[in-house]
Amino acid sequence: MAENHPWKILSFKQIIDTPYLKVRSEEVAIPNGPVVSDYFIIENRGWVGIVPLTGDGRFLINRQYKHGIGREVLEFPAGAIDADEPEPEMTAHRELMEETGYSVVEGQLEPLAHFYANPTGARTEVWWYLARQVRKTGTPKVDPMEVIENLLVTPAELLDMMYSGDFNVLGQIGAAYMALERLGYIKIAL
Amino acid sequence: MAENHPWKILSFKQIIDTPYLKVRSEEVAIPNGPVVSDYFIIENRGWVGIVPLTGDGRFLINRQYKHGIGREVLEFPAGAIDADEPEPEMTAHRELMEETGYSVVEGQLEPLAHFYANPTGARTEVWWYLARQVRKTGTPKVDPMEVIENLLVTPAELLDMMYSGDFNVLGQIGAAYMALERLGYIKIAL
Repeated sequence: MAENHPWKILSFKQIIDTPYLKVRSEEVAIPNGPVVSDYFIIENRGWVGIVPLTGDGRFLINRQYKHGIGREVLEFPAGAIDADEPEPEMTAHRELMEETGYSVVEGQLEPLAHFYANPTGARTEVWWYLARQVRKTGTPKVDPMEVIENLLVTPAELLDMMYSGDFNVLGQIGAAYMALERLGYIKIAL
Repeated sequence: MAENHPWKILSFKQIIDTPYLKVRSEEVAIPNGPVVSDYFIIENRGWVGIVPLTGDGRFLINRQYKHGIGREVLEFPAGAIDADEPEPEMTAHRELMEETGYSVVEGQLEPLAHFYANPTGARTEVWWYLARQVRKTGTPKVDPMEVIENLLVTPAELLDMMYSGDFNVLGQIGAAYMALERLGYIKIAL
């Protein structure tokens, strides 16, 4: 795709600079438009999501309290890329083990999708993987900030949760559909 | 779903407070865990996305430069809820007209999904609508910060863009699948 209309960055300030959140404010010149003095952009290393599938065809999902909305959500394992993880596959293996105690052997972790989380206001990139034949080989990390209950659900149960709105995290729905399609549970009928 | 494990908010500071971005830093007590002094939460009124479908069965999508990632994306019309829009349907009608010049009559705008954008670090809620029988009845808003090219694509063309990675905005993929399913272009095969 052609990359038209790039805005010119005249200057920038780092407004928030922590390991958890970095926000910069840019002064930008808009083509045929004004100079905007404070265009905010959220920066991070991105995050990785994993759709784990057991040998008997069940999806492994998490139930976890999320303080941003102050309530629990159901979602696939996912987490932020660490500084020492140049390949998103490394994050996938680590997050799967930390959040579930399950692991996947190398050849069974396959790329599912690459997305931009919020192109308007964030650099954030997201990588999704399908992890087949996952097995419980370890123990989840104990972290009072991430108290996670693991659930195994059938494709029908996952779809029910999507339809009912119980599985309702934005970035997870597309991955769920893509995994269901990859696994043959969804057919295109044009 | 039960709401377990709520964290206790001990105090908070407003770090960024602009019309475009609000960030608060909370001091929170984690059950059976530490007190965290700076848990960041992004606040806004949420946003609305619209999947517009013409009478001849084509989807209306936008090509637009996004400065967060410094390149163009393909996506359905979407935008932030304004302060004077208590109902997300109002945002849906406004954004559809502003970004495309198309409109939808009242009975043809139907709820498609409700999501949380980032439950870990943001309050943001997202509402998606399917707009059937959209028609060009006006003129898009002229805004140098949102230079938008409108495209009409068939369901097959939309799917090709999703598979190729050209249609790759995280929050849009789930809505695309849900619309394709609602319209009968996707069948569940369990």
